[in-house]
Amino acid sequence: MGSAPYKVILSYNGSEFAGFQRQANARTVQGEFETSLRRIGWQGKSILAAGRTDAGVHARGQVVKFNLDWAHGTAELREALNYYLPRDMAVRDVMETSADFHPRFDAKGRHYRYFLFCQPVRDPLREDCAWRVWPELELARMQLPTKALIGSHDFRAFGSPTTKGGTTIREVFSAAWKQEGDEFIFDIIGNAFLYHMVRRIVLALVKIGQGDAPEDLIEESLQTGEFPLTGLALAEGLVLEDVHYS
Amino acid sequence: MGSAPYKVILSYNGSEFAGFQRQANARTVQGEFETSLRRIGWQGKSILAAGRTDAGVHARGQVVKFNLDWAHGTAELREALNYYLPRDMAVRDVMETSADFHPRFDAKGRHYRYFLFCQPVRDPLREDCAWRVWPELELARMQLPTKALIGSHDFRAFGSPTTKGGTTIREVFSAAWKQEGDEFIFDIIGNAFLYHMVRRIVLALVKIGQGDAPEDLIEESLQTGEFPLTGLALAEGLVLEDVHYS
Repeated sequence: MGSAPYKVILSYNGSEFAGFQRQANARTVQGEFETSLRRIGWQGKSILAAGRTDAGVHARGQVVKFNLDWAHGTAELREALNYYLPRDMAVRDVMETSADFHPRFDAKGRHYRYFLFCQPVRDPLREDCAWRVWPELELARMQLPTKALIGSHDFRAFGSPTTKGGTTIREVFSAAWKQEGDEFIFDIIGNAFLYHMVRRIVLALVKIGQGDAPEDLIEESLQTGEFPLTGLALAEGLVLEDVHYS
Repeated sequence: MGSAPYKVILSYNGSEFAGFQRQANARTVQGEFETSLRRIGWQGKSILAAGRTDAGVHARGQVVKFNLDWAHGTAELREALNYYLPRDMAVRDVMETSADFHPRFDAKGRHYRYFLFCQPVRDPLREDCAWRVWPELELARMQLPTKALIGSHDFRAFGSPTTKGGTTIREVFSAAWKQEGDEFIFDIIGNAFLYHMVRRIVLALVKIGQGDAPEDLIEESLQTGEFPLTGLALAEGLVLEDVHYS
């Protein structure tokens, strides 16, 4: 026996969480996960995670790591955790991993998806997991600005680094929109993201698509380091889809 | 001035409602709608509706009717109602209608949609508006039984009439499945439906698709009037999409 390191793929509906990171007086993803983990004998201090999602942000592929003294297989560990986890969280997969695996520092890429739809009136069946936007977007206007994101850039206009004084240079591997009827899906994959970066990018692209901001806003911001808009795209539209390791 | 009759297209997320019909001690769609209507001066006793959806069942196209003394246009009425309605309800459209219009008795057809997905593990991002089903469905097995529903039949095996002692004969105009990846969508349009009819039909087709029930179960039940399964498809997967009038 003795404890072994585990890697878990975690999904959650962020609507009723005050974000990922544990807080003393708020319901958080980390807090709920650690509580469930304690029910099966975990005595650690803190789990590790690939990224700290904001309040309201969802995940289908958050990655967490912990050490656990567990006498059964990984399938049984998944079952046990899903038994104790609340309804808005679920373990999708469990793997044994190496002691030196770190879900954040070892990540080579992250895939975020943003979901929005264009309607003039509220839609109670879609607004838990999407941003309702009006007036309509013109996808053609958003294509070049979206392409401008790809590559290595100083993204300081779009967010702050996760560690104080850290670099604001990030590499975006791909960024693209898909439209289906009134629904728009934005997929962005990069090596890492600044705090609020995806939601500022989406806000900028939506304003461009609505004809409410100049089409060169993204390029301008990358050059000047300044973001001329206020606010963020709604947290509920954002999903951490996947974290890639080599 | 004086009150005029209005027809409203209503959508709601049924997850946190104890059904449509007003109850003294539970949160219902009718109760919340009438409360909001009173905020703008309505003094009626009861609204009329096309159908009474069960607890958990959603709607994108419920139709309600009421008389109201309203000095402004229908767009303003929609705005006013959406201002007062809770987050999980919204008025999609408002029209003036005739005094003798009845949303239930005048309806010529109803379109219900059932949404499910096949996964072995819980999915917190989809389970508010879908039924998670496992093991997987084989669509090929479900095609003939689905076609058997179409036409005029005595559906007493699948539900009870909405009025006591009423007829159990209903006409299904169309019924079909669409599959996209792990997601299955069932669309059924009929002149009217018995209480629980769509959820029993879906349960039967799912069991057939899983190889857990004989492929002639639907035809057998239509002939014998007996339903050999217990239970219902999950309410959260069902949406009243649309009500048709001539």
